[in-house]
Amino acid sequence: MSAQTKPPQLDWLIRNARVATLSDSEHTYGALNNATIGLAAGKIAVIESDSNAAETLHATNEIDAQRQWLTPGLIDCHTHLVFGGNRAQEFEWRLQGESYQTIAQRGGGIVSTVNATRTLSQEALFEQSAPRLERLLEEGVTTVEIKSGYGLNLQHETAMLTVARRLGEEYPVTVRTTFLGAHAVPPEFQAASNPKQAYIDHVCQEMLPAIAESGLADAVDVFCEGIGFSVAQCEQVFRAAQAFQLPIKGHVEQLSNLRGAVAAAKHHAMSVDHIEYLANDDVHVLKDTVAVLLPAAFYFLHETQKPPVNALRAAGVAMAVASDLNPGTAPMASLLNAMNQACVLFDLTPEEALRGATCHAARALKCHDKGVIRVGADADLALWGIDHPAELSYAINFHRPTAVWQDGKLSKQARMSNA
Amino acid sequence: MSAQTKPPQLDWLIRNARVATLSDSEHTYGALNNATIGLAAGKIAVIESDSNAAETLHATNEIDAQRQWLTPGLIDCHTHLVFGGNRAQEFEWRLQGESYQTIAQRGGGIVSTVNATRTLSQEALFEQSAPRLERLLEEGVTTVEIKSGYGLNLQHETAMLTVARRLGEEYPVTVRTTFLGAHAVPPEFQAASNPKQAYIDHVCQEMLPAIAESGLADAVDVFCEGIGFSVAQCEQVFRAAQAFQLPIKGHVEQLSNLRGAVAAAKHHAMSVDHIEYLANDDVHVLKDTVAVLLPAAFYFLHETQKPPVNALRAAGVAMAVASDLNPGTAPMASLLNAMNQACVLFDLTPEEALRGATCHAARALKCHDKGVIRVGADADLALWGIDHPAELSYAINFHRPTAVWQDGKLSKQARMSNA
Ligand SMILES: [Zn+2]
Ligand SMILES: [Zn+2]
Repeated sequence: MSAQTKPPQLDWLIRNARVATLSDSEHTYGALNNATIGLAAGKIAVIESDSNAAETLHATNEIDAQRQWLTPGLIDCHTHLVFGGNRAQEFEWRLQGESYQTIAQRGGGIVSTVNATRTLSQEALFEQSAPRLERLLEEGVTTVEIKSGYGLNLQHETAMLTVARRLGEEYPVTVRTTFLGAHAVPPEFQAASNPKQAYIDHVCQEMLPAIAESGLADAVDVFCEGIGFSVAQCEQVFRAAQAFQLPIKGHVEQLSNLRGAVAAAKHHAMSVDHIEYLANDDVHVLKDTVAVLLPAAFYFLHETQKPPVNALRAAGVAMAVASDLNPGTAPMASLLNAMNQACVLFDLTPEEALRGATCHAARALKCHDKGVIRVGADADLALWGIDHPAELSYAINFHRPTAVWQDGKLSKQARMSNA
Repeated sequence: MSAQTKPPQLDWLIRNARVATLSDSEHTYGALNNATIGLAAGKIAVIESDSNAAETLHATNEIDAQRQWLTPGLIDCHTHLVFGGNRAQEFEWRLQGESYQTIAQRGGGIVSTVNATRTLSQEALFEQSAPRLERLLEEGVTTVEIKSGYGLNLQHETAMLTVARRLGEEYPVTVRTTFLGAHAVPPEFQAASNPKQAYIDHVCQEMLPAIAESGLADAVDVFCEGIGFSVAQCEQVFRAAQAFQLPIKGHVEQLSNLRGAVAAAKHHAMSVDHIEYLANDDVHVLKDTVAVLLPAAFYFLHETQKPPVNALRAAGVAMAVASDLNPGTAPMASLLNAMNQACVLFDLTPEEALRGATCHAARALKCHDKGVIRVGADADLALWGIDHPAELSYAINFHRPTAVWQDGKLSKQARMSNA
């Protein structure tokens, strides 16, 4: 790595770090054994591996990493973390032996979260959602995607996206918002002769144009499934989104193979998410589309069908890993735990899991200057008191970053022992 | 609940709490809808459900719980949290497709942790272990059991137990130590004609008397398994322990059914731990012996044989839940996550999981004044910003206690919002 000629005035120098740059795919973890990283104006300005050259660098703030490992800040590219209430009661009923039917009659399922979310003020929705975001940030997350999808009408979808944007303003994190109106059919459409189609028409003709106009959504998502929407209905949403230049993605092939991934890829989706039932023969369609693996839902739902990891790996498809944080099928606020699950349940290697939560997650959000440590990339970084990057995926709840920079600013620092 | 007549001077009053007392087994969570709890001299001195009567109480410190839920402090009754190094490299090799044989040749497995532990000073062992304890305490744990078992000689087993005791002195937690000399055969015994028997003789004749004399162990444990020690060898350890009045317990029936649980119960074990392979017909032997469920090892090892939960439940056996925190088969520093796994993987109800991490865990450690909220019990308490106690088991990494008392002293308090 060569220094820049005449770097700009540096805000930060992080000296004596081992660095998992993840900036190339051949070299294991893209690792540097001892480097000094300089930050300026929210960007990585210098990466200096020559310690003599590093001696000549100076910055407003300096930190001795003591050979701890520096990684890109983690990126959780698929969450539903803004919601009201919780589904603990339903979880308890199920374990007490109640049938799904009884639970549905008592008001369980996604509709209960829609009802709980609609009753809250934006302030209350923010207050309930913020602790979940705090849990992610404690673990070194610096970018998070947040979906709507529990409002299911313009007013409440707008409220969810507004709260998501406000979380990004009040916390040291980049928030990418996604409009997921096509998540479920809201109660008020159940009386229509074809509730799903009537609601999708409403999403495309009424909600999407207003959401696009508001600028509150960075992307548009759908739930393509027997219990969600058909491929044709999802394609209708994709076309409507693209009319407003909004990029698209889809929840596909989670519980069955409808070939939603093929349709999404045809529409140049940024990502296809879940994909446990994606056929090996369809893997080739994923070229510029990232495969987002969501092992928490697999765990909570006792699923046995695993995503086609070997085929994805063989085809060179970028695999991201995300928490899927949501109240029903993945009440889990930990991207590190999702990385562990991706290894334990889906047989990813620790390096694939870390790339899945950094550079590939960035690709899934089209944040091309994130998730990687290279000159010119965004200065989102996490420093870890570990001896090997595999430790991040190996253990559950062992690790917290000792320091985190987001947008070039130190957002968290723990006691660094004089190891 | 009636007030004490003339309570002693109170150190703390916790007003307006919903309380999961867990003090009886009929009444769901032993719940009180609105109570005031008074603490004095490290004990629960008053439980007052009459709000008029509570008005007349006063204490040096008072807190308005704002109808948050108060539970006993959590108890992790099975951990190996003191150890050197980690096994992330081995985890990575396995996922890269290396065979168990190759990994063993490269020095993987328990021996690698023994080697890493033996090379550390007590100070370094403390420094490496403390962050794992901190993770547990952040989640409301106030009592933790810590085993030796990576020293496997008198010097290093003593070092591990000394570090465990010191953790209990330096952190707000009650530590119960367990001597697990009979964990594996150390390298220096491999040359013996019968390595297992030679080492067990050494454990019983040399190590156990010295450990008992030192007072460093509160109990004695064994690993009864084909890859561990035979039932006869474990019984030899039990008899040696009982000669020194040390209570016993066992790792039994984790990978096969050797009927170690039957032998342990015959020797009045405090607990039998793992027990995935315990036969339904043997469940009846567990009367005063607690069944400790360890779902994290089940998860990490991809096991499919579940413990006989229905039979245990039907027989009224006390079921505890613990993290099993260890570097090889359960690198997980979260008792709340173990509670979630006990529900998701072993079909416990959230109430059983909470009892498993409080009152039943206390029984497994013979800490009869812990794990329950009743007058006279130890003042180890956690306050949670939740609407229902089932939330603690339902979600992963959502919750942190808003306040924790250990031994009657406030050990942690978070911002309490004015909800
Ligand atoms: Zn989702
Ligand atoms: Zn164990």
